Amino acid sequence: MYKIVELENGLENVEGFYCGATNVGMRPDKEQGDVAFIRSNVPCDISAVFTSNTFQAAPIKHFQKYPKDFKTNFVLINAKNANAMTGEKGIEDIDFIMSKKQNVLNPVMSSTGVIGYRLPLEKVTSAFDTLDFQSKNSNDAARAIMTTDSFKKELAYRVELDDGTSFNIAAICKGAGMINPAMATMLCFITTDADIPKSDMDALLLDSTEQSFNRISVDGDTSTNDTVMLLANKQSGAYNKEAFSEALNKIMFELAMMILRDGEGANKLVAFEVKGAKTLEEAQKASMALSNSLLVKTALFGEDPNWGRIASTIGASGIICDDETLTIHYDDLLIYSSEFRELDKAREDQAYTIMKQDAFKVTCDIGLGDSSYTSYGCDLSYEYVKINAEYRT
Amino acid sequence: MYKIVELENGLENVEGFYCGATNVGMRPDKEQGDVAFIRSNVPCDISAVFTSNTFQAAPIKHFQKYPKDFKTNFVLINAKNANAMTGEKGIEDIDFIMSKKQNVLNPVMSSTGVIGYRLPLEKVTSAFDTLDFQSKNSNDAARAIMTTDSFKKELAYRVELDDGTSFNIAAICKGAGMINPAMATMLCFITTDADIPKSDMDALLLDSTEQSFNRISVDGDTSTNDTVMLLANKQSGAYNKEAFSEALNKIMFELAMMILRDGEGANKLVAFEVKGAKTLEEAQKASMALSNSLLVKTALFGEDPNWGRIASTIGASGIICDDETLTIHYDDLLIYSSEFRELDKAREDQAYTIMKQDAFKVTCDIGLGDSSYTSYGCDLSYEYVKINAEYRT
Repeated sequence: MYKIVELENGLENVEGFYCGATNVGMRPDKEQGDVAFIRSNVPCDISAVFTSNTFQAAPIKHFQKYPKDFKTNFVLINAKNANAMTGEKGIEDIDFIMSKKQNVLNPVMSSTGVIGYRLPLEKVTSAFDTLDFQSKNSNDAARAIMTTDSFKKELAYRVELDDGTSFNIAAICKGAGMINPAMATMLCFITTDADIPKSDMDALLLDSTEQSFNRISVDGDTSTNDTVMLLANKQSGAYNKEAFSEALNKIMFELAMMILRDGEGANKLVAFEVKGAKTLEEAQKASMALSNSLLVKTALFGEDPNWGRIASTIGASGIICDDETLTIHYDDLLIYSSEFRELDKAREDQAYTIMKQDAFKVTCDIGLGDSSYTSYGCDLSYEYVKINAEYRT
Repeated sequence: MYKIVELENGLENVEGFYCGATNVGMRPDKEQGDVAFIRSNVPCDISAVFTSNTFQAAPIKHFQKYPKDFKTNFVLINAKNANAMTGEKGIEDIDFIMSKKQNVLNPVMSSTGVIGYRLPLEKVTSAFDTLDFQSKNSNDAARAIMTTDSFKKELAYRVELDDGTSFNIAAICKGAGMINPAMATMLCFITTDADIPKSDMDALLLDSTEQSFNRISVDGDTSTNDTVMLLANKQSGAYNKEAFSEALNKIMFELAMMILRDGEGANKLVAFEVKGAKTLEEAQKASMALSNSLLVKTALFGEDPNWGRIASTIGASGIICDDETLTIHYDDLLIYSSEFRELDKAREDQAYTIMKQDAFKVTCDIGLGDSSYTSYGCDLSYEYVKINAEYRT
């Protein structure tokens, strides 16, 4: 067995990693950095999951030019400019920037911001003059990579194994909720001193991404820059696959929920479980349709228990379904079944109470199979939404 | 040859059709009806296109119970209640309602409003006591079927043929733009006295729907009640297929644009042409992705010429594309090509001027094939959007 202990702060908890940030003038507010670094004192294994957008940004293409299973000791991250749709020049710019930094092995870059402009090379390289490469300032790094985020996102866990050994895993992350699709770019950098084999890194990172960031609504828009990276320097000497997997799942899931909660104006976090579907693909399709639907999101904001919007979204999702076998629950409250179509006053009142919560669950049982999938969404607030939310009143 | 002349008002221009509305107490504002009728003095041929939502509303299922090529002389339409997800009872309710009306042949019903409640039978049938079945009041009918529409939608054309004969075609329609997804339900009732064969009605209605209502952004949400109906009583004795097709296209396209313009708070109407795609399916996919994207809509509202959001949406749409062959135009202004990535000041200024227009066109040439498709969208305004729209400034 093992124990997972949450730690304060973020990346500074992981042995052998250094991090920090500086402001090179890309972000007007000088109190907050715009260029951050993560450095390891020994070469690290690195695994990454990138956006499915065909127009992958230059930093992603640059990363992919390294041979498979390359090691690195340096990651540079900038905000305000995505270095996307910048062609071959965008990739060359990264090589140029990194040529100005000594003692780096296969340096990696990551960017977020506006698409279609080349990086300001002089500004970015000036970061090397002001960054303190001996610092362990996760707070500054987490703040520097923010775009429209309203709070910084960092997390750290220590995993204590039965044999008395332990390892650490930590992450910084940026991303705004679905209400901010222009900046839906999600970046996440995870460091660990666990003695994890590279093959486990690849497999577990993919699996945890599927369980976390791929399950939150970012509005159907997929940025050119989305990136999740896991860096392992093995410094602790300790490892247990099951424990690591759980800690990684936990850290990525919690960060994904932080992103959802940061959806501008979002007040509610809702889990959409679709079960009883014919196939996993159909369950996923219907669940993602629910968490992406403006129709549903506005109903959540209006705390309107009208299940019609849920049903209509499932019907429009293109999966095999039948209003005779469908049931819908809000938490444990049955809100629709074919014998029970109209919402009576008592159930409507209970539904209102459930919907007033910060977080709740919508369960749709298609009643035709055994497959299930859960995704996570938030409500859509703001004045304009009121018009939809208040439609029924 | 022929001439298409726009007429004033709507359905009253078509020979042999009667229409009007009454308020039976479903809509609190008594100045506006909530039940409307369209009646023909002779049995009509009727063609219809219905929603692709699996959970088709009761009126649609009721319609589909009639034998193929049935004739009707009566359509009843109500607002405030969609009669959707009401099961077998919802269909029986329509039969009950129609049993209270004399002199109807295969009566048809159509509904829009909240999902999940049975129609208030007493109220709806009380309409038969107050409706004036001899009236020709298209204005009242068009207003009665409105939900969140901010203006009524009706149109009429007279088609004058070379041989001195003529026929009329007219329509009333309701539907709110993409910003109002809960009420995305679109209803359209078209009447004509053209002597059109039923087979032409079916084919031309399908074709015109594809060219109009299916090309406007309703946010990916498809209502349970979407309906387009064409009623033909042949009273004029006149017909020309080419002329009728053009008039039908024109009436449906104009109504679709009215729906877009009625998107709450929407200020701009934008055509998204995707050309040079490998297949028609890919052109359509990318074009619809653009008109549905919040990312793009917020940029339109912000009058932000940043083409990055356009490119990112195409890249995320899943079609085959390449940033080396892609070009993007706003009206006639080249705004992106691989040799021409960064927006210089002169072009940015021109782009601002284009984007300030009420209507303009975005053309994306994928540069890999011969297929093209155009869809139509509007901007997303409202306070919340400002945050996205102003991101770059």
